[in-house]
Amino acid sequence: MKMPLGEEKNGACDRSIYVNNPHLDSMTDDFLYHFNLGTSTHDLPAMFGDVKFVCVGGSPWRMKSFIEYIAKELGLSEPNADYPNICAGTDRYAMYKVGPVLSVSHGMGIPSISIMLHELIKLLYHARCTDVTVVRIGTSGGIGLKPGTVVVTKQSVDSVFQPCLEQIILGKPVVRSTELDGELAEELLQCSKDLAEFETVIGNTMCTLDFYEGQARLDGAFCSYSKEDKQSYLAEAYAAGVRNIEMESSVFAAMCKLSNLRAAVVCVALLDRLKGDQLTSSHDVLNNYQQRPQVLVGHYIKKKLNVGKNIVKF
Amino acid sequence: MKMPLGEEKNGACDRSIYVNNPHLDSMTDDFLYHFNLGTSTHDLPAMFGDVKFVCVGGSPWRMKSFIEYIAKELGLSEPNADYPNICAGTDRYAMYKVGPVLSVSHGMGIPSISIMLHELIKLLYHARCTDVTVVRIGTSGGIGLKPGTVVVTKQSVDSVFQPCLEQIILGKPVVRSTELDGELAEELLQCSKDLAEFETVIGNTMCTLDFYEGQARLDGAFCSYSKEDKQSYLAEAYAAGVRNIEMESSVFAAMCKLSNLRAAVVCVALLDRLKGDQLTSSHDVLNNYQQRPQVLVGHYIKKKLNVGKNIVKF
Repeated sequence: MKMPLGEEKNGACDRSIYVNNPHLDSMTDDFLYHFNLGTSTHDLPAMFGDVKFVCVGGSPWRMKSFIEYIAKELGLSEPNADYPNICAGTDRYAMYKVGPVLSVSHGMGIPSISIMLHELIKLLYHARCTDVTVVRIGTSGGIGLKPGTVVVTKQSVDSVFQPCLEQIILGKPVVRSTELDGELAEELLQCSKDLAEFETVIGNTMCTLDFYEGQARLDGAFCSYSKEDKQSYLAEAYAAGVRNIEMESSVFAAMCKLSNLRAAVVCVALLDRLKGDQLTSSHDVLNNYQQRPQVLVGHYIKKKLNVGKNIVKF
Repeated sequence: MKMPLGEEKNGACDRSIYVNNPHLDSMTDDFLYHFNLGTSTHDLPAMFGDVKFVCVGGSPWRMKSFIEYIAKELGLSEPNADYPNICAGTDRYAMYKVGPVLSVSHGMGIPSISIMLHELIKLLYHARCTDVTVVRIGTSGGIGLKPGTVVVTKQSVDSVFQPCLEQIILGKPVVRSTELDGELAEELLQCSKDLAEFETVIGNTMCTLDFYEGQARLDGAFCSYSKEDKQSYLAEAYAAGVRNIEMESSVFAAMCKLSNLRAAVVCVALLDRLKGDQLTSSHDVLNNYQQRPQVLVGHYIKKKLNVGKNIVKF
């Protein structure tokens, strides 16, 4: 393992970013292709050295809206301020920053977020960031939950409800743990209680490689199982503690754990999959639901930075 | 299997789009969520009924640029014409259309393209399209090829070089064939010979779930293998007929085959992975490479539609 480069803090290196790659030392330049940023073309420590919170989500629009929201919440917004996309020159991902908060889109699915995380981890490492918390804010299908409920992930589990991720390296399977930070999850739950604006639960999140057949939907282009098969699979998931289903949490948890990043997954459930597969709520209602993870995480960041009147110390 | 709805042509239904889902019959409305299009909100046969060619690619920008290019090539462009994104109201995918050609972005990775294809196949089905050809145009890493070489995929293979895709349905593995249309691949190779602008080969394409460790790169945030391990894995791939590596072809091939869509994968190799992992070519050179698949497919569509002076009948 490569030693972390971050400064020592409280006598320990334990909040530095790890990269586990001895080959990086011998590279004179590292170009983060999908961000269109590089160590020889950009001063990464100057651009990103102060980052303490990274929020990631699928949609570029939502991540731009998050940075506008958090700027306002932290009192860092200026009249008519625009937040330029830092990844200009590519449309693979979008990235925005205000103060200590970075907001990055990751597209849909494990491979898409995994490319982004490889480059994000190297970016934070090259920028010599320390003590970074990363939160995925997203949408999901709930199981046995009222639509609009926010789920903070306890464990990200696979399609047979195990907290692990199998990745293929040089043609061979490697199994990685998808453990998340339990303390951070509890802190986020407490934030929801502070806010008292919507319901939040802690539960397991199933992460799948497919939105239709992989999540037992009946409305894809293909479906070879019955409604009863679907209901019975979702009931099994519920019994295993699964409260929502999405498509990125497992590799997010595994990669953050390997890099020493404190990580959480906060997704709103847009519907109850036990009752249907398609979204029937209005555009406005769905829009309100989608803002809940960002409101929750915004409150958490404010608390951590002691911003606002009601200062709560951790 | 649900019977195809398409009109009979030459006494057979064999160019219609299949959906293999008996549940679709009982749905009064089908909302294609990630396209923001639905059967009760849009007249899909009127909007898409004439589609004969669908080109898909990762980047929304590239798919917009493709529709502008093909409009000009087919003589369908008008002065100052703008091509609005048909998927307005969502930033998950972008979709453009001119005449019989549809251009759709799919993001990066198997899960992302799989969501798009479920909804594209249902869209073509609801629109009662027939005789549709789908081509993925993309970028890839080459193996033993000069950068800029275009690869038309013979077989899409997995990380142990087998032409199949394992998908998880209700927690159980289902293996699907990733066979592509051999005749279409040969026709595309012939188009490259007609053009004589760049080199094109037919070869196997390895499809992975990860860009860094999954493709034996040495420059990710994590790497647990040596340069020798990498070289030996890529050499094995070459020996198995693999000429390039990308991240979408397997599920693209499998889903098109299940839907009776004539399908091809045409990707340019941006670098030779036997010689490195990072891109060192200039922006202009890479930009030129990225246009090659669209030039090749543009020529193919023109030939099929008998557009231009040098009419070639198939």
